[in-house]
This record gives sequence, C-alpha cells and structure tokens, in this order.
Amino acid sequence: MAHQAVQELIGLLPDGVVITGPDEIEKYREDFAHDGSAGTPIAVVRAESAEQVQQTVRWAAEHRVPVVPRGAGTGLSGGSSAVDGGITLCLERMRGVEIDPACQVAIVEPGALNVEVKRAAAEHGLWYPPDPSSYEICSIGGNLATNAGGLCCVKYGVTTDYVLGIDVVLADGTQVSLGGKRIKDVAGLSLLKLFVGSEGTLGVITKAILRLVPAQTVGATVVSSFPSMTAASRAVVAIRTLLRPAMLELMDNPSIRAVEEWRSHGLDGAAGALLIAQSDAPDAACAAEVELMRRCCEEAGATEAFTTTDPTEAELFVSARRNAFHALETRGSVLFEDVGVPVPLLPDLVDGVAAIAARCEVEIAVVAHAGDGNTHPVIVYDGTDPACVDRARKAFEEVMALAISLGGTITGEHGVGRAKKGALPDQLGEEVMALTRRVKDALDPDGLLNPGAVL
Amino acid sequence: MAHQAVQELIGLLPDGVVITGPDEIEKYREDFAHDGSAGTPIAVVRAESAEQVQQTVRWAAEHRVPVVPRGAGTGLSGGSSAVDGGITLCLERMRGVEIDPACQVAIVEPGALNVEVKRAAAEHGLWYPPDPSSYEICSIGGNLATNAGGLCCVKYGVTTDYVLGIDVVLADGTQVSLGGKRIKDVAGLSLLKLFVGSEGTLGVITKAILRLVPAQTVGATVVSSFPSMTAASRAVVAIRTLLRPAMLELMDNPSIRAVEEWRSHGLDGAAGALLIAQSDAPDAACAAEVELMRRCCEEAGATEAFTTTDPTEAELFVSARRNAFHALETRGSVLFEDVGVPVPLLPDLVDGVAAIAARCEVEIAVVAHAGDGNTHPVIVYDGTDPACVDRARKAFEEVMALAISLGGTITGEHGVGRAKKGALPDQLGEEVMALTRRVKDALDPDGLLNPGAVL
Repeated sequence: MAHQAVQELIGLLPDGVVITGPDEIEKYREDFAHDGSAGTPIAVVRAESAEQVQQTVRWAAEHRVPVVPRGAGTGLSGGSSAVDGGITLCLERMRGVEIDPACQVAIVEPGALNVEVKRAAAEHGLWYPPDPSSYEICSIGGNLATNAGGLCCVKYGVTTDYVLGIDVVLADGTQVSLGGKRIKDVAGLSLLKLFVGSEGTLGVITKAILRLVPAQTVGATVVSSFPSMTAASRAVVAIRTLLRPAMLELMDNPSIRAVEEWRSHGLDGAAGALLIAQSDAPDAACAAEVELMRRCCEEAGATEAFTTTDPTEAELFVSARRNAFHALETRGSVLFEDVGVPVPLLPDLVDGVAAIAARCEVEIAVVAHAGDGNTHPVIVYDGTDPACVDRARKAFEEVMALAISLGGTITGEHGVGRAKKGALPDQLGEEVMALTRRVKDALDPDGLLNPGAVL
Repeated sequence: MAHQAVQELIGLLPDGVVITGPDEIEKYREDFAHDGSAGTPIAVVRAESAEQVQQTVRWAAEHRVPVVPRGAGTGLSGGSSAVDGGITLCLERMRGVEIDPACQVAIVEPGALNVEVKRAAAEHGLWYPPDPSSYEICSIGGNLATNAGGLCCVKYGVTTDYVLGIDVVLADGTQVSLGGKRIKDVAGLSLLKLFVGSEGTLGVITKAILRLVPAQTVGATVVSSFPSMTAASRAVVAIRTLLRPAMLELMDNPSIRAVEEWRSHGLDGAAGALLIAQSDAPDAACAAEVELMRRCCEEAGATEAFTTTDPTEAELFVSARRNAFHALETRGSVLFEDVGVPVPLLPDLVDGVAAIAARCEVEIAVVAHAGDGNTHPVIVYDGTDPACVDRARKAFEEVMALAISLGGTITGEHGVGRAKKGALPDQLGEEVMALTRRVKDALDPDGLLNPGAVL
C-alpha cells in the first residue's frame, strides 16, 4: 500500500526528486539536535519548486501520509526529525534569492541559506539583520519555521519582524499568498505572523518576502572579562537599562575553554566570563555608548575591558562566540538549551543553571544572547554512560523548569521541535495548549504536517 | 427573553457597570467612522476588571448574545459599531498603566490611552513608540485590535512589534495569558501575534505587556514644499532608498488648506504638497541625514526646504499633520481611506487617487505616512446630497481597488472593521478568506465576537 503510494509519488515528480534508498535518506533523518526520536521516512522529496511542494502535499493528503518539512537540517530541537511511515519534504534545492532594491526586500525561496540572503542584500548596500550563529549553514525556511533570532536581535529584532509576505502550501495542498511588498498591512487576521514560528505544523512555506534595511556599520566592539557569570550578567542588566547595544553576547569559562581548545581565538582561558558588546551608533554616539558599556562592565567587576574598532579583530571574538556550539560538540554528547528570562533575571538564571549542574553532576557550558535574556546552556556529557545520560536528561528538564519559574521561556529562538515538547505544557498551561490545538486542528485537521513536533 | 438575560447580566455585575438607557448607550453606538452600520445594543457593559470582562463574555456565550468590544471609540473603520441585539463591551474604565523600568515594559489595561502609556514611560526615561495621529484620545486596546501604526513607524515599527504579552478572554469566557516579560519567546504557535490586529473578532484583550525603548531625541525636522504630490512622493521614494528617517509625513494642498482654515499653523497654503521629515540620529549623523533628505527634496523639485532643530517649532508642523483628519471633518461628510502600496509605487497611488477624484467629481484630500507607503485619502463630500453620497462611495471603492491593483492593501493601520470589509475578499482572495474563516471558527465557533466586522 505504502509502496504503491510512493511509486505514484515518484511518477508525479521529475526524476531524482523523490529518493527512497536507505543510504540516501539516512542524512535526512535527523537534524543537529540528534534527539533520538527520528524514524525512517518512506521517501524524501527534494522539491525544486513550489509546484512540486504542492503536488507532494496534495499526494500526502490523499494518502494520509505525514509530511515533515525540512530546510538545511541545522535545527537544534528535532523539529525536522523524520517520522516512520512519513515523508520528509526537503526544501534545500529551492535556493532562489532575488533582491528588489527599490522596495528594499528580498524575495527568497526557503532553501536559500541565511548567508546567501545577506550576501545578495549587501550587493545593493542593504542588510538582512536576523543572524543565527549558524547563519552560514542554516536556511531561511528553517529561520521562518522557528522565528529564529541571533546576535543582532538585541537591537534589530527577530525573523518575524522582517517578514512582509509568504507563500505557504496548506495541509490540503492549497497554496496561499499572505502579505506582500507593502510595509504596513492590517487587512484581515495576522495569518502571516501565525505561520512564522509554527515549525512546519501549519503549512510549508515556499517563498518569503523579507524586509531589508540600510547596511550596518559596526563602530566599536568592547570585550570584557569577568571573574564570574554572575558579575557579567549584572553588567548586562546595567547596560540594557541604559542603551540598546548592537550586540551583547556572553560566554562562560567552559565555553571559552572549549572554543580555545578547538581552535585558538586568543581568548583568555582563565576568565570566568567574557562579554562581547557592540555599538553601531555613528561617530560620537558610538564613543558615548562604548564609554557607558565599559563603565557598566567595570562597575560590575570586570577585570579587563578591551575596545576595538578594527572589524577583523572584532570578528575574531564574535566568531569565537558563534563557534561555541560546534566546539562543545567535540567534547562529548550535548543537549542544547535555549531558555530565556526577563533581562533583569539573567543573574538568577545563570546562578540557577550552575546549581543544577552541580546537583546533577554534569558540565553545563553557557553562551547567551545576553542582551535579550536568551541563554544557551549546553549540557556536555558522556553519551556512552547510561547514568550520565540520565543525569544530563534530568539537568535538561530542570533548566527548562527553572526558566519557567522565573517567568521565562523554554525556547527563545530554536523552537520546541520534539526535544522540548514535553516541557511546553508546563510553560503554556492547559488552556493555551487547548487553544493551540484548536488552531492546529483548524489548519491541519488530519494532523499530517510535522506530527510529533511542538504538540 | 433578551430582557430577562439583560436583567441577569445587571445582577451579575456591580451597580453602574451595565447601562441600558437609550440616551446613555447612544454614544457607544458608533465609532469615528460613522459608517452607518451601527445598530442598537441591548446593553453596554463598562467593565472595570478582567474578571468582569470574563463574567460578561461567559454570560454572552451562555445566552448567545453578540459582543462588540470597544476601546475609546476613535476607530475609523466601524470596528466597534454596535450590533442590534448584541452588547457593547466597553473597556474605557480599565485604565491601569504600570511601568516595570528594569524589564523596560509597560503593563497596561486596554482602556488606557496611548498618550497615558507614553507619559508613564517618559517618567522613567523610556518611550512607547507607536503613535497614531489620535494618540491623545485612542486607547491601547484599540491600538492592539487594529495593530495601529502612526508617524514614527517608518523607523520604529507598528504596535505588534511592541507587544510582548497579552491576557485575552476567549469566546467561551476562558482567560489565557500569552507571552510575558521575556523579549524572545518561540514556545508554541505565535498566538499572541494572531490576536494583535484581530479587531475583537477572536477575543477580548484585558491586559498587555508592551515593550519600551530608551527615550527618543529628535534632532532635526525638515519641512519641504513641493509644487505637486507627485513631486513630493518622488522625494519620499528617493529618501527611503537612502536612509530610515524617524518620520516622513506628507500633506497635499487640500489638507494644508483645511488645517490652515481650521486653525493657523503657519503652513504655506499655496504649496502643492508639504513633506515633513525628521531625523533622530545623533550629532553629525543627524546633520548628514538632514543633508541627504534636503538634497532628495530639492532634486525632486521642492520649492523650499526649511530645517529646524527647535522641538516647539517642529511640533507645530507635526501637529498640523495630525490635525488634518479633524480639520477635514469640519468641511463636510468624510470617508477615511487607509490604503498602502510598496513605497516605490507611492507616486502611482497619489496620481491614481487624483484621477479618481476627478472622475468621481469629489474632493479627495491626501495625508500620508509616506515613508511606509501608507496613505490616507480622505473623501470630503456633501452628505445631504444623495448624488454626492453615491459619488463619494464610488470613489471610496475605487481607491481601494487602485491600491489592490498596485500590490497594496486596503488598510495599513486602521483595520477593516465594517467600512472596508466589502473589499477584503478583493485583496485577500477566496482561499485566504476561507483560511481566515477557519481560524475564526476555531476560536469563536458561535460567531459571537464582533460579528459583522472584518468577515
């Protein structure tokens, strides 16, 4: 039965679009979360056009086959883990990027990488701000699915703030266009915003119109060393009450050491924490912001505060921060957290995470988009030792519970996917879960779109 | 039957909350659109608390009584026009505003005026940017319902960009909390964003957590006179490709004259169009922005470009722009448009509107949040002359059709309400209308929330 349906799908689409060989589909089973939930799809569709996406979803609706949409597979929550008996609908071949400089928008297919949009925009002196650390390898489709954030979001906002329009294929295969090149539009419900961040559970986005802004010029970068994460996070709180820096990123000592051991970036391996702050204010305003940030750092106990206006030197520190996940992955098995709290509670969060690490006897390295109160505690553990795995899982749950208890969130930018869905009801409560279910059922009554993710 | 139900409602709530006297309820029948659709409610509930809102909505669900939520009643699309046999649920008494300066948020009840939030924030050196022209008299609840914009949105975005959390009473009387004081949160569907802009059709917002930013300092205001709207709108397009001004507002000659006749603001009544541009960039960057804007205006044919750094002088021009609606209302009956197009098509839109005015033999004055491509053609006509009324209605429809034909929207910030719902399917198309209906039905299966608005 399933075999017959797959044969029909293969016949519907051009040669090579549908793949079914076990070796070929293996790399489409998991995303970067390796959350252990991944099944084996009956086929992987590497769609080349919106029309092929529609044909695939129509076929899936007819045969009641689950569809897992997938971008570049760099997700950190298992949002694109394959499901047994389903298909994985991969958008990696739909890579078109077109810039409309007059309207200051990019018209982008979902498989285009974030960096490709940035590069295309830059050719016209324009900038697409959202910048996940994985911006060089993650796709816009995945960014839209998770409402991705990044390093510049503290000043420039997240993905949803830049989406003016989308084409989306609904569960029954209908394609609709929402929004457009106009900047303001309140005609009808905000359906566009509902699809952004829906992690492939409501539809498959086949095109996006993204707002661009004038290119950014970073003026100065301040790198401060602190004896502890507590001290550094107090500096963050102080800075955020005074100004909106263009970047405010935090690394703890285990992250610093992991990055340095993986590849030297010239960081101080003895520092308890490192805070990387940037100003893109012009001229004297930049100097004023730098001065304020330095003073906040010194008053919070920074042992050193180093300022550079050299973009190459700055990029060394920023790339150290971006490389932290990768460096930590080389040290063992990892569980990625993405918890966020109101900014003033950042010190409570980092202290609480340290307590959980001690109690559960696991190493938890912390990097953070600190200016947004969004932290990434990364639990590093020995995946071959069952007792260690249990302790790591326990710590993973406790960090999410801690964030919720501080009025925070279990995920600031990675999405719930499959890795965090157990904790979602704890954050949202029964009534919001029921409301979520009503919206999901209205848009995907047969539950075929990314089943097992989020809900 | 209805009488008995109303008696029950009166008994449920404290004295004075429910009013039913014909004279008393008269002022709650219409909003500023005076769209002619307003019926007579069986009661008006002036709720004092979220609990009373819940009690009222639960009662309405039980008795299947339609509920029209209402803020300050300053809407321009008939979104809070009363319906026969329904109740109007007015939030004007729920005026609480609390500032959390550490988290940089305002916790606001829906009846609080926009200006009250701005003032409370300013006491802490903070700023709530969204600024509809009616900011001194419109409520935050209404702003949330329509996803209101304003003058500073060209640089600072619209209401939805500042909403971190809401409490909302659903159609069955359940109250849910969405979001919170954390800045980034992608846990679950973006339900929060779905409620913003839903014009009271999905729930009644009883509290909002609004993001604040450091107070703005306007550096300079450039006021330029043009021989025509076409020339001025070309200057707008040029400016928007070079920078993001803090304000970019346009008035045509009929608007200028109407304002001057109503109350002199010192505007040049002979100018074909007036463009008011502001920069809030610091120091030399401000001077550079001013220079760029002046040059764009001169190259587009400005006959004069006057710059001031005096806030009082600047406010005179800005208030002239804000007062345009009010001044035009004194000249006859009015129909308010709110159409938007991609910015480069602004000249086409203003030329098209002029052609419609000529063809339909009506006066159409145009003011615009020009930097966003969002214009307000105001049709001024003799409401006592049936032929004139017909021509005005025809022009109203034609302006919306023009915007749609240019890839634009029938409403950029006022909402669809009842006045524009006839044109909504023309913009969205059948499939998006069906999708909208599915979401509406999932959240309000009995269709009791603001029936007749939007859909």
